Amino acid sequence: MLDLLKLPVSFDTATAKLHLRHARRDDLHAIMRLLSDDPISSGRGDVASDQDEPAYDAALDRIIQDPGNDVLVAVDDAGSVVGTFQLTLIPGMARRGSTRLLVEAVRISSTERSSGIGSALMRWVVERAAIDVRASVVQLTSDAARVDAHRFYRRLGFIDSHIGFKYHVTAASPTSQ
Amino acid sequence: MLDLLKLPVSFDTATAKLHLRHARRDDLHAIMRLLSDDPISSGRGDVASDQDEPAYDAALDRIIQDPGNDVLVAVDDAGSVVGTFQLTLIPGMARRGSTRLLVEAVRISSTERSSGIGSALMRWVVERAAIDVRASVVQLTSDAARVDAHRFYRRLGFIDSHIGFKYHVTAASPTSQ
Repeated sequence: MLDLLKLPVSFDTATAKLHLRHARRDDLHAIMRLLSDDPISSGRGDVASDQDEPAYDAALDRIIQDPGNDVLVAVDDAGSVVGTFQLTLIPGMARRGSTRLLVEAVRISSTERSSGIGSALMRWVVERAAIDVRASVVQLTSDAARVDAHRFYRRLGFIDSHIGFKYHVTAASPTSQ
Repeated sequence: MLDLLKLPVSFDTATAKLHLRHARRDDLHAIMRLLSDDPISSGRGDVASDQDEPAYDAALDRIIQDPGNDVLVAVDDAGSVVGTFQLTLIPGMARRGSTRLLVEAVRISSTERSSGIGSALMRWVVERAAIDVRASVVQLTSDAARVDAHRFYRRLGFIDSHIGFKYHVTAASPTSQ
């Protein structure tokens, strides 16, 4: 959990009042649902299945215990979790010893997309959270297929200056013993 | 420092024997030099100036103290630091609670480029380090201008599936008080 973040915080979006807070263990099912509520994520195996619950639960616990990581949830007035994202604070040598704030796994409920929730959350990240944690760069990668998301991040002031590479580690690797 | 990494380790490259270990405080000047020995980094302000030394020194100390981060240095038989990179271990919810290993700030001495050092180091990251720390994805972003680096990462088995976005937080932001 990133203790420096000033949470909880509330926003007004075009359609709703939104409350942003640190995720708790009892948000597990809501977060699993949001991850599966997206064709690209579900294609990667995030399908909110019962058999995967222990892995998600252990991951959420690791993140909550970690002073450099946080999962946040956005809750509407009815108490429903409508958005989630992860933040990682990364001390670094490059850019004159800059600290970076990495954003991962941004997911907004499919029923709420285009409602301004994503924009309000990411605006909070760059305008508030980055200042709270004293980061000078906020960075994220977005799947090349998410063309609407790219437009959205550019509008917020993000610059698409980099290529994001992923390597999938296989358990069958000859060096995995 | 990532305690799970099995370090130090030695490799034979085409031209030299290489020793990889955790960076120490007294590697500061060598790392600053490697960061400045690159036109893209120096264009971002990494020019190894004396006045920036306290910021780099504080950053290196934060990384060494941090159980989720590590700066590594590759040293040749003569004791010269010829390469450096940073690793960050990131617990995550997406991809069924996958842990990721993020690689940042890979720099090889300009006199040693194309010698196979970068390839040996990145091969160690995906084949050894990722297994040691139990990461299932290794990820990195590379400046869109580094066309040679992209070829290099593709050859190692990285997939350029994402766009990397950066947002530069300005101290002059109205919300920075």
